[in-house]
Amino acid sequence: MTDAANDQRKFLGIDLGGTNVQIGVVGADGKVLSRAKRKTGAEEGRDAVLARIADGVNEACKSAGVPLDQVAAVGMGAPGPVDPNTGVVIEAVNLRWVDEPVARLLSDRLGRPVFLDNDVNVAVYGEWKQGAGRGARQLMGVWVGTGVGGGLILNSQLFYGHFLTAGEVGHMIMHQMNPPGVRSVEHNCSRTAICNRVRQLIEAGRASIVPDLVEGKLGKIKSRTIADAYRKNDALVVEIVHDAATRLGIMLAGVVTLLSLEKIVLGGGLTEAIGEPFVTRVRDAVKKEAFPAVCKQVEVVASALEDNAGVVGAAFIALERLDARA
Amino acid sequence: MTDAANDQRKFLGIDLGGTNVQIGVVGADGKVLSRAKRKTGAEEGRDAVLARIADGVNEACKSAGVPLDQVAAVGMGAPGPVDPNTGVVIEAVNLRWVDEPVARLLSDRLGRPVFLDNDVNVAVYGEWKQGAGRGARQLMGVWVGTGVGGGLILNSQLFYGHFLTAGEVGHMIMHQMNPPGVRSVEHNCSRTAICNRVRQLIEAGRASIVPDLVEGKLGKIKSRTIADAYRKNDALVVEIVHDAATRLGIMLAGVVTLLSLEKIVLGGGLTEAIGEPFVTRVRDAVKKEAFPAVCKQVEVVASALEDNAGVVGAAFIALERLDARA
Repeated sequence: MTDAANDQRKFLGIDLGGTNVQIGVVGADGKVLSRAKRKTGAEEGRDAVLARIADGVNEACKSAGVPLDQVAAVGMGAPGPVDPNTGVVIEAVNLRWVDEPVARLLSDRLGRPVFLDNDVNVAVYGEWKQGAGRGARQLMGVWVGTGVGGGLILNSQLFYGHFLTAGEVGHMIMHQMNPPGVRSVEHNCSRTAICNRVRQLIEAGRASIVPDLVEGKLGKIKSRTIADAYRKNDALVVEIVHDAATRLGIMLAGVVTLLSLEKIVLGGGLTEAIGEPFVTRVRDAVKKEAFPAVCKQVEVVASALEDNAGVVGAAFIALERLDARA
Repeated sequence: MTDAANDQRKFLGIDLGGTNVQIGVVGADGKVLSRAKRKTGAEEGRDAVLARIADGVNEACKSAGVPLDQVAAVGMGAPGPVDPNTGVVIEAVNLRWVDEPVARLLSDRLGRPVFLDNDVNVAVYGEWKQGAGRGARQLMGVWVGTGVGGGLILNSQLFYGHFLTAGEVGHMIMHQMNPPGVRSVEHNCSRTAICNRVRQLIEAGRASIVPDLVEGKLGKIKSRTIADAYRKNDALVVEIVHDAATRLGIMLAGVVTLLSLEKIVLGGGLTEAIGEPFVTRVRDAVKKEAFPAVCKQVEVVASALEDNAGVVGAAFIALERLDARA
């Protein structure tokens, strides 16, 4: 291992999402030196996506003043299950990728070593190395947005499990008695679930300012709409957001009970849009329901890196894997 | 580490429960050479319990023909949270013990090194080393009896978590919408829960052979009563047992989804009393509900060591810790 304080190496961190790719040049100290962004454009196929990523990499390197051949290694987070050992994306539903050897293909394009991991794992790793999760040995990151994703740090390591899919908290069943399609955490606590619930109740006649905010187009409710209505104290939205936060908290209390976690970091679009009131309600429910009593000491905090978590985490994964290989 | 195949050492394994203490002399190959049993008698206080354990140890040593001073080390599983590093029982509710330095006290009595762990951890460790969990890297043991306990082997190690309490699957909340006291796994799937439910429904007028089996004393329903009525195809008991197994399975599917487990081992009094029909229903529900699809490959099996799991696991914990210390 290189002496961290004197480590002058630069890394590339890439956060590949269904809509956008975030790219950054990151120092070994975790400082983000430059950022670039591209549309993912998955509909044009894999090679077009990789070409756009390479283009964004060049922009990020140029604006950081770091030539690509002086980048020590590249880390990338990709959606869906990923094999971190082979660098293969096993399945990314919204990219329509199955068994794509993305690390190798991108390495061929960039001429640098590329390390791959799941996008939520990468963001959680970023929070753990540089953000709100620093120093925790047993940590879970929960990202609440379009869906609900999770990543685990157990005994100070990313935990993958037997099928390399660990962390899928969004797909745990929350209400056994509900009909299929409304039983999971994601079906009850994601931004999508909250928007659907708001729409249903408005259509059923509940008063709300949401129809005005979206000019009557109830299909167009976004994180920002929910956040606006919440800030304006819209009774319907406040009720639904608080209910989702509390139910998520009770579920996460179960995870704390199972794993005796030290810390939970909450991130993602909905968490950022609502902010502290969301985190507070999740925290209160976790602390109320965790067992045994000693587990109520678990910390529940908001992500500190927000938008940078993926880029910073990917860069640190590149650093650690490169050093582990040496 | 000693060469396992030629390891002639003998260990003592002790399984301390609320009612009974099981004691065994166990070879380094996992073979149980002798067994002894004592009443726990917690109401007489800690020292009386330890004296009875020492007495049982002498009996087990004598019947195995292994003098106590030739026992390499002693392992013991105790109920409630235990600090495996200090050998202190943090809290054992049914023994009324708080912060008792049991490893040191028993070591003083026996003149041998004593290593302590939680009773469910110890049983799961036994199944992992010698029973139905052999070879699995990511495993959960779930013990269904008076309560519901659990223990985790993650990355081929017992997993303790930050507060040393990991594995408490019985206290995860299963039905958020239920009133307090009937929300947890234990409140819905333990032998106690099943007996209560059977009694309530009989009192509400449902037909069953259970009142005949307990001569009208509905407070006296035991695991054996449930097993008898189940085997005689009593519709009420069959319905309630199947419901508990399925609900436990849906809950464990969530644990598999979270941890990407390779295997679940089911043990405990109720699992043993009902046997394969219970395990099958839990397995079916786990495989139906686990996410993503690859996790449906998880194996769900019955404990192989049954009554010996605690004694064998405790002996192996003694062996491993003794060697780790050397």
